[in-house]
Amino acid sequence: MPRTAAKPIAPTLPTAPLIVSTHAAQIIAALRKREAISRTDLARLTGWSRPKVTGEVGKLAKRSLLVESGEGASQGGRRPRLLKFNHELGYIVGVDIGATSMDIAVADLNAQVLLRDSGPADVRDEPLELLGEAKRRALALLARRDIRPKQVLGVGVPGPVDFIKGVLVAPPLMPAWEGFSIRGYFHPIFPSAFIAVDNDVNLMALGELKGGAGLGQDDFIFVKIGTGIGAGIVCHGVIHRGHTGSAGDIGHICADHQGPICRCGNVGCLEAMAAGPAIADRALAAAQNGASPILAHKLAVGQGVLRAEDVAAAVREGDHAAIEIVQRSGQLIGDVLAGLVNFFNPSLILVGGGVATIGNQLLASIRQAVLRRSTALATRELIVSYSPMGGEAGVTGAIHLALEHLFVVQAKPSGV
Amino acid sequence: MPRTAAKPIAPTLPTAPLIVSTHAAQIIAALRKREAISRTDLARLTGWSRPKVTGEVGKLAKRSLLVESGEGASQGGRRPRLLKFNHELGYIVGVDIGATSMDIAVADLNAQVLLRDSGPADVRDEPLELLGEAKRRALALLARRDIRPKQVLGVGVPGPVDFIKGVLVAPPLMPAWEGFSIRGYFHPIFPSAFIAVDNDVNLMALGELKGGAGLGQDDFIFVKIGTGIGAGIVCHGVIHRGHTGSAGDIGHICADHQGPICRCGNVGCLEAMAAGPAIADRALAAAQNGASPILAHKLAVGQGVLRAEDVAAAVREGDHAAIEIVQRSGQLIGDVLAGLVNFFNPSLILVGGGVATIGNQLLASIRQAVLRRSTALATRELIVSYSPMGGEAGVTGAIHLALEHLFVVQAKPSGV
Repeated sequence: MPRTAAKPIAPTLPTAPLIVSTHAAQIIAALRKREAISRTDLARLTGWSRPKVTGEVGKLAKRSLLVESGEGASQGGRRPRLLKFNHELGYIVGVDIGATSMDIAVADLNAQVLLRDSGPADVRDEPLELLGEAKRRALALLARRDIRPKQVLGVGVPGPVDFIKGVLVAPPLMPAWEGFSIRGYFHPIFPSAFIAVDNDVNLMALGELKGGAGLGQDDFIFVKIGTGIGAGIVCHGVIHRGHTGSAGDIGHICADHQGPICRCGNVGCLEAMAAGPAIADRALAAAQNGASPILAHKLAVGQGVLRAEDVAAAVREGDHAAIEIVQRSGQLIGDVLAGLVNFFNPSLILVGGGVATIGNQLLASIRQAVLRRSTALATRELIVSYSPMGGEAGVTGAIHLALEHLFVVQAKPSGV
Repeated sequence: MPRTAAKPIAPTLPTAPLIVSTHAAQIIAALRKREAISRTDLARLTGWSRPKVTGEVGKLAKRSLLVESGEGASQGGRRPRLLKFNHELGYIVGVDIGATSMDIAVADLNAQVLLRDSGPADVRDEPLELLGEAKRRALALLARRDIRPKQVLGVGVPGPVDFIKGVLVAPPLMPAWEGFSIRGYFHPIFPSAFIAVDNDVNLMALGELKGGAGLGQDDFIFVKIGTGIGAGIVCHGVIHRGHTGSAGDIGHICADHQGPICRCGNVGCLEAMAAGPAIADRALAAAQNGASPILAHKLAVGQGVLRAEDVAAAVREGDHAAIEIVQRSGQLIGDVLAGLVNFFNPSLILVGGGVATIGNQLLASIRQAVLRRSTALATRELIVSYSPMGGEAGVTGAIHLALEHLFVVQAKPSGV
């Protein structure tokens, strides 16, 4: 006599990743690409018999992964009932943490943003403090729509991470984060969710790929210039993370064999010579040694501190020293990118990050150096531009990262 | 009354690329991965009904794309009849042209090499002369097994090409080849074949990927050091050609901002400073200025010419000047590769080409420079070694390139 397990009465919420068979995954993929689809069209697409389609659809409907969605146009007979992916099955939380700000968005399973919040943050804070702030803001957002944390099926968060483990690895500017588990932190808060963590510039590249200038681009590079310099690489239409997850780590490529010693111990690293702090140092020197009266004035007004905005303003005012400083940074970055363009032959380079707000002079210098030093064939159709999504790229990427991990396909052992 | 078309009596040979439906492609893919498979297992894999499997199998059998292959083990009932991919449907010709040699191989559709030929060639010859030599040798090879040129379904050939069009683009060392159509040349000779052309180092990378050290490696770089320096990139398990097909063109990456002017017009290109001619120039200088009595002796014996083998021999004899020359080359190449390792984070770098025969000193210097200048995370599991396939890599890659283009999948317009 077969044993019958007691069935739970309360419906259980799904838990990500949702494990599906290869055949179920085919149906879900077809549904996610379209508004709605009939059973007949599903049969045509898969090559399966109608009973097989009905069986697979039934299994997915039972798990609430697809729902009926009205009727389609008649093909001569009865109007077919349509099926669609249940994008209201749960929610996705995307987090983006910049050096001084934090963006949070809540989206449905179609990546449609329903709620968003943006505010200041300090990345130098301890992990528990910074993530605590992210948690409070995310829960407050969800509460606005009466969404329970258990309904969140995916969370995307930035971090200089070991992508596989979801823990941070030796982040040079954030020593307190070494080995900290972001996944471990968020799991108790969102128990049904898969917590996906990736570094900030990979998220930005993913954001542009899914909803920005990278749409339809197979091979492109997103370069973030801020306190450091890093790149997110899209190759064959997906994020390229490399063998140990460190791809895109271009800040320590040598820009000048005669350059200064970097904090990493090597000579002439791009980051040490061209990122935000290098620009600030050179601006400070120009303000103090009389090369730039405009910067000297801004230094006095700013109580001994020069920010990127000050250098940007000086450039707009036509200050030669400031222009020279920005051009020098752009040229160094462009020289390194030129080599990467020869190697990788992308269709597009997008420049973002805090220093990108410094104005068009930087982009012009980067572009000039790339065009001068790359081969003609590699630059024939290359576009170099600022990231059009700007601050939106990171949080959009975080949502898509979590969505990419929503399903795990498990092949049935078939013995063949 | 249905009209009946007159059927041709003589069987027509297939012509590549073989156009198949998405469903037929699924069966072929399953067959190519396995020795043999039963209809029952095919049904299980695809999710199709038995009649559907029988129908698709029948269509493919009619085109001789699959054949019956004995019986499998009984699963309790009748022993199932097995099907296998018909790898004897036609043949593939792979060609590899080096600076001084030409390799040709004939393989079946499983990439099993049946016949091979290797001999001298001069890449500086006119296209018609060089390819005429390839044609004569290929036809002679085929004749040994009574294979008719019409039975050849694919030809893989190297060339610095516009991959899409199969014509050469601005090859700096071979001006007579500009715009020459390799595909146009071979088409009348092998009228049933798809002629696939790619640059030599992409073929070498593909050879290593399919049958050498690259087996199972998702992300690696093959570096060819000869008269020039180029790289073949494997990303996510396939050759990465880039947006305009010029990916891997690393010879003109800047190795030294204070370096000599390259024939491309830029300063300090890697190729100008570290490839074969640069090594030869420096060896010649060392022979003439008294720095190396050993090289001076070899120069006298060689009647005023020093070859890579002479430098290699001098290194083995412990000649300081020769060692220093090779180390300098390796260091420059390693410095450039270090930047590419930070960017791309490969698991493996394979070094091949004529200069690779110069000995282990070169590899040691490359490795040292890469380890010194790349980030710890990127080199944690990185292997840098000589290409184990050596001269076989190119011709193996040429065969696989042609095989990759054997089938074209055409989706039926389904209206969904």
